[in-house]
Amino acid sequence: MSEFDQYLSPPNLWFSELHKNEVGLTFRIKDVLYAGHSKYQRIMVVDTFELGKVLILYGSIMFTEKDEYFYHEMLAHVGMFAHPEPKRVLIIGGGDGGTLREVCKHPSVEHVDLVDIDSEVVRISREFFPNIASSFDDPRVSVHFEDGAKFVRESKDRYDVVFVDSSDPVGPATTIFSREFYQSIKEHLTENGVMVAQSESPFYHAQFISGLFDDLKKVFPYVRMYLSWMPAYPSGMWSYAFASLGVDHLPKRGPETLNGKLRFYNPELHKAAFALPNFVKEMVGQD
Amino acid sequence: MSEFDQYLSPPNLWFSELHKNEVGLTFRIKDVLYAGHSKYQRIMVVDTFELGKVLILYGSIMFTEKDEYFYHEMLAHVGMFAHPEPKRVLIIGGGDGGTLREVCKHPSVEHVDLVDIDSEVVRISREFFPNIASSFDDPRVSVHFEDGAKFVRESKDRYDVVFVDSSDPVGPATTIFSREFYQSIKEHLTENGVMVAQSESPFYHAQFISGLFDDLKKVFPYVRMYLSWMPAYPSGMWSYAFASLGVDHLPKRGPETLNGKLRFYNPELHKAAFALPNFVKEMVGQD
Repeated sequence: MSEFDQYLSPPNLWFSELHKNEVGLTFRIKDVLYAGHSKYQRIMVVDTFELGKVLILYGSIMFTEKDEYFYHEMLAHVGMFAHPEPKRVLIIGGGDGGTLREVCKHPSVEHVDLVDIDSEVVRISREFFPNIASSFDDPRVSVHFEDGAKFVRESKDRYDVVFVDSSDPVGPATTIFSREFYQSIKEHLTENGVMVAQSESPFYHAQFISGLFDDLKKVFPYVRMYLSWMPAYPSGMWSYAFASLGVDHLPKRGPETLNGKLRFYNPELHKAAFALPNFVKEMVGQD
Repeated sequence: MSEFDQYLSPPNLWFSELHKNEVGLTFRIKDVLYAGHSKYQRIMVVDTFELGKVLILYGSIMFTEKDEYFYHEMLAHVGMFAHPEPKRVLIIGGGDGGTLREVCKHPSVEHVDLVDIDSEVVRISREFFPNIASSFDDPRVSVHFEDGAKFVRESKDRYDVVFVDSSDPVGPATTIFSREFYQSIKEHLTENGVMVAQSESPFYHAQFISGLFDDLKKVFPYVRMYLSWMPAYPSGMWSYAFASLGVDHLPKRGPETLNGKLRFYNPELHKAAFALPNFVKEMVGQD
């Protein structure tokens, strides 16, 4: 204890992420660990009292340490377990490494390409979130710092599972929310191939979601939405789009063979996540 | 248009509901429609730009017009449809009338007792939320303004379904979160009787939930948690406790016979809501 301790206490510093500048999550910041920007976006890492460390890109919360596995497990494992034996995986976005960490738990995986436009996100995540960015050194993983839409246009490779782990359809991720982009992804799927994309909140983004699912249905023969919780995202109700050339969304294998524990996903939850509230069914044109 | 219009624009007035004074929902208020208090609690009704009108008791959001049916439909219909033919229903709390509205959609219902300690909540809800408080004049409904715990101790009646539609386990609702209270409820259930209680957020209230489910399992032979979304509640991930003398949680009838439409509930969602993430299963001691 010194007489200066009082001057070292956390400032009364608050962060808010607001939908239409009107409503959203707010929290107090214990410490600003990093505040900078890349060529593409402003990047912040803050520590908090209740949510652990938080990654904020262009003013949007990507995850908090307290809830990141809600999102990463439900994005990754629904797609991975819907495929009978995923060997080759493509992750577009996901530079924080969370989806990659979950994908790498699957022993069938032989190769993963991760394409994020922003190398700074990978660097920052490795520095501040080593438990999330834990699979970048996995020998099965190749990281590509380029535009995801460009990568799929130019690549000749095919994949068993493709993840679109994008930020919101504003800023750097705009190009990966178009019908042309989904058409390109389709052309890179193997016979039993599956695509899973995060698809925003039905509570706040109804119009975006209706348009997205219209687009997806024009490209893929099998399209379904599923839902889960993500407390740090707007409304806490988060949706994902599952699309395939024909393979259904049900789990084909159990999680027993995984390398690593799961804190959120289980096969019952996988199946249950595809049951949608009536107003969401209407939004995506599902009976 | 007059020169004074600028002085009539909404003030930059914000409301926040914070968990541990650290994190929570914040929104801008368009107008304060009511600010007062009853004998029991402070009561506010505000209008907002994105959530419609909002009822706030003791500083906690009870619902917004945009999401109230998320909560009321999932609380009411899971309990009602799990029973083969609910005729007599007890609602403890629920003075806003939302759960009552959903219960009254069931044509099998012959009598509903609603017990809320605070008559002001009913009055305010009828005045500001007529679409939510729409069933108080239903001839099948009796409203009792008294303490819910006292009511069940003294009543001799039995019910097919009992709802504990309480506010948080602070303030006026403290007495209805005890093992003695659940024991009293059990003694008022008919043979196929069912109890459903709102049970807070697994994201923020883990310790409370573990204790509650421990208590419930000591009282009821059949206890299960289910989950849904409630964007205006802390974390958006909201849990409910289903307890019975033996009847399982599955829907026994379909919603075809209801008087009135549902915007959220359907039988698939009813079943799916009982699939829990791994960390929640651990919290309630479920395999």
